[in-house]
Amino acid sequence: MQDLMQKIVSLCKRRGFIFPSSEIYGGVEALWDYGPLGSLLKNNIRDLWLKKFVQEKEDVVLIDGTVIMHPKIWEASGHLESFTDPLIECKKCHSRFRANHLVKKICPQCGGKEFTPPKQFNLMFKTFLGPVEDEASPSYLRPETAQSMFTDFRTVQETMRLKLPFGIAQTGRCFRNEVTTGNFTFRSREFDIAEIEYFVKPGNDEKWFDFWLKEWEKFFLDLGIKKENLRLYEHPKKSLAHYSKRTVDIEYKFPFGWSELAGVANRTDYDLKRHSQFSGEDLKYSDEEKKKKYYPYVIEPTMGLERAVLAVLIDAYTEIKGGRTKTTEAVKKVETVLKFDKKIAPIQIAVLPLVKNKPELVKKAKEVFKLLKPHFLCQYDEVGSIGRRYRRQDEIGTLFAVTIDFDTLEKNDVTVRDRDTMKQKRIKITDLIACLEKQL
Amino acid sequence: MQDLMQKIVSLCKRRGFIFPSSEIYGGVEALWDYGPLGSLLKNNIRDLWLKKFVQEKEDVVLIDGTVIMHPKIWEASGHLESFTDPLIECKKCHSRFRANHLVKKICPQCGGKEFTPPKQFNLMFKTFLGPVEDEASPSYLRPETAQSMFTDFRTVQETMRLKLPFGIAQTGRCFRNEVTTGNFTFRSREFDIAEIEYFVKPGNDEKWFDFWLKEWEKFFLDLGIKKENLRLYEHPKKSLAHYSKRTVDIEYKFPFGWSELAGVANRTDYDLKRHSQFSGEDLKYSDEEKKKKYYPYVIEPTMGLERAVLAVLIDAYTEIKGGRTKTTEAVKKVETVLKFDKKIAPIQIAVLPLVKNKPELVKKAKEVFKLLKPHFLCQYDEVGSIGRRYRRQDEIGTLFAVTIDFDTLEKNDVTVRDRDTMKQKRIKITDLIACLEKQL
Repeated sequence: MQDLMQKIVSLCKRRGFIFPSSEIYGGVEALWDYGPLGSLLKNNIRDLWLKKFVQEKEDVVLIDGTVIMHPKIWEASGHLESFTDPLIECKKCHSRFRANHLVKKICPQCGGKEFTPPKQFNLMFKTFLGPVEDEASPSYLRPETAQSMFTDFRTVQETMRLKLPFGIAQTGRCFRNEVTTGNFTFRSREFDIAEIEYFVKPGNDEKWFDFWLKEWEKFFLDLGIKKENLRLYEHPKKSLAHYSKRTVDIEYKFPFGWSELAGVANRTDYDLKRHSQFSGEDLKYSDEEKKKKYYPYVIEPTMGLERAVLAVLIDAYTEIKGGRTKTTEAVKKVETVLKFDKKIAPIQIAVLPLVKNKPELVKKAKEVFKLLKPHFLCQYDEVGSIGRRYRRQDEIGTLFAVTIDFDTLEKNDVTVRDRDTMKQKRIKITDLIACLEKQL
Repeated sequence: MQDLMQKIVSLCKRRGFIFPSSEIYGGVEALWDYGPLGSLLKNNIRDLWLKKFVQEKEDVVLIDGTVIMHPKIWEASGHLESFTDPLIECKKCHSRFRANHLVKKICPQCGGKEFTPPKQFNLMFKTFLGPVEDEASPSYLRPETAQSMFTDFRTVQETMRLKLPFGIAQTGRCFRNEVTTGNFTFRSREFDIAEIEYFVKPGNDEKWFDFWLKEWEKFFLDLGIKKENLRLYEHPKKSLAHYSKRTVDIEYKFPFGWSELAGVANRTDYDLKRHSQFSGEDLKYSDEEKKKKYYPYVIEPTMGLERAVLAVLIDAYTEIKGGRTKTTEAVKKVETVLKFDKKIAPIQIAVLPLVKNKPELVKKAKEVFKLLKPHFLCQYDEVGSIGRRYRRQDEIGTLFAVTIDFDTLEKNDVTVRDRDTMKQKRIKITDLIACLEKQL
């Protein structure tokens, strides 16, 4: 299974999905750049999320808050005190580890057996606002987007005239100074969270928890992830976070084991109460029907977009031994197809002239490419044999390959090849956009 | 004109476009949160940018890099040395200012006349990677997205088999620890840049500079900004940045004066050369036709998304004295319309039952709302008289108001009101989606 992980990492690098940040400088641990295909895939997932949970929902609005916020927010939220990992240091080589990750009590760097006692290390990145860098003005990079939904709660509720229940959604960059990292992009120091804080009447919280857990699970099925690779993990009462009444993770069967992909937490009225207390502002909700004021409860469905990308990549990864096309070249080795769902494939259409040394074919192919580009995510490719190019497109999950051949010049039609069935159809160029739009 | 600025700030706060980050804690200078309408408006501008410059261009690919990168990148780019402002301190009250912003040599805080000599203050936010916080491991938050396009240049070019000329585009969060801030969101400490590094053969750079300057200007016209409110500013040779051969700003006529909205720079081969030198990796391009290797020149069109949002808000802001509808209520005061271009309006359709105390109208209106929501950015509103609701929708720039009245219940048609002409048409509900799609 770790072998599969290596194949994914290698494919991601080779085809421009994901590669290390600052790679020419040797990279930086746990920081990854998304290349042309990776950034499109990630955007497609984000846009689908925005469509389903902001545009289509009647009671969810979006915000876009800052990464750096007032430092007191992290006191109120409990992050300054509790968002820590126990850090130990090898007394021999001074390497540092997360105490609970070091199962073998032997330093993996030098074999040393003596460690310093665990010290709590805060995972928030620290920075300094304004032109004075001293301990009096430290600030932090948000480790989650949630807090601005709480601090903006009243402004959003009032300006948008919202009534309970309603949600505030946000997606954006978050930062965690992880002590131990690894498993490719799974535990990164920078990542985009997509989450909703859904405010409800106390007493209705358990019902809404169940609702959001179902919605959240459905989203991953909509991304095309196989049902058998998803499962729920109910956090035991005793290990719940300080703010949580109930937390359920949605886990994916990663090659390195079942691990958290997303989660839903019942944060109760913890955050609004704490921010009222620390800011001195009243964040209670005025219930006009009941003629009283109270703190809403909050259900928080949350997911990491990069983990969704990784799960989708693994789930779509398909190897066909001996090849599907049975050409001599293919039979010798394994063909790879990324079977992305059509809603999120980074390239929808490849446009291919049959051969590249016939100027009239190339010219026509480029015309078709120009025609399709405003409507679809397209890629033009003329290098190598047509069979090789089909496989190259299969490997990045392109949904349809449009081939321009000699018949095209006479009959003004093209071949449209389906990635999964490999079936080919002749379609008139004049019908091409409508035909592809219908299938997408 | 500053009066107009105050009106915009107030409208943005009142209607949930933009308000201070961490406001319940007193806010943080120059950090702004985008509320439900502001975040949609900003996303619409970003998505239009992505469509025009990534999807529709044949030779531009997207990446999504990290905010924190290898610290050596900022040495190579020159930021560590030169991305500074001259900082002076009032000797009396210790307030700090940018020397070149203090025209009157008198402290605006206390009237003091003596200042410390200017000290160069670096505008990059500093942070610390990994569990050791000491001067040996400082890292920085990117003040621009450009550098990862240079460090990823070879990987992107090779994995995507790109030939000159081609561009790498990126949009994402950037951070600048500004000494002086102000003019609402104009100079913020966090902002989203949208930029392209377009790599060309040396010698073709001037031609491509002109091309991109036109494309960039056209984008702002496409956003609906009036031509007379845009102008070009050619940087004099002697004040060009260290890497630039030519820089032209696109300025907008803000209420506080003509100011930079976007720009195009000819960065020559400065960045690729410097990164080759500092990283030890060869970032030359292999020109197969010419059988030689060389450093491409780089044309950089860049813009700040928040500045585009601000310009669009100001440009769309229209006051109609005495009101357009001539109702008693309206005549008394000024009506405000945000005349957003239809491509970027945050709310496309408002769905309004004529009155809210008739359950059958409300039920029908909610059905229409549900019908339209998957297709358009919609808002449902039932509070207040219909005239008042029309004006409320005009104030946030909603393109069309769909009203459900008693005739709707009999004839299954609705009134569609156009924001700009105020003309109303009866449309069958069965034709509604097609009819609105046609107009949008």
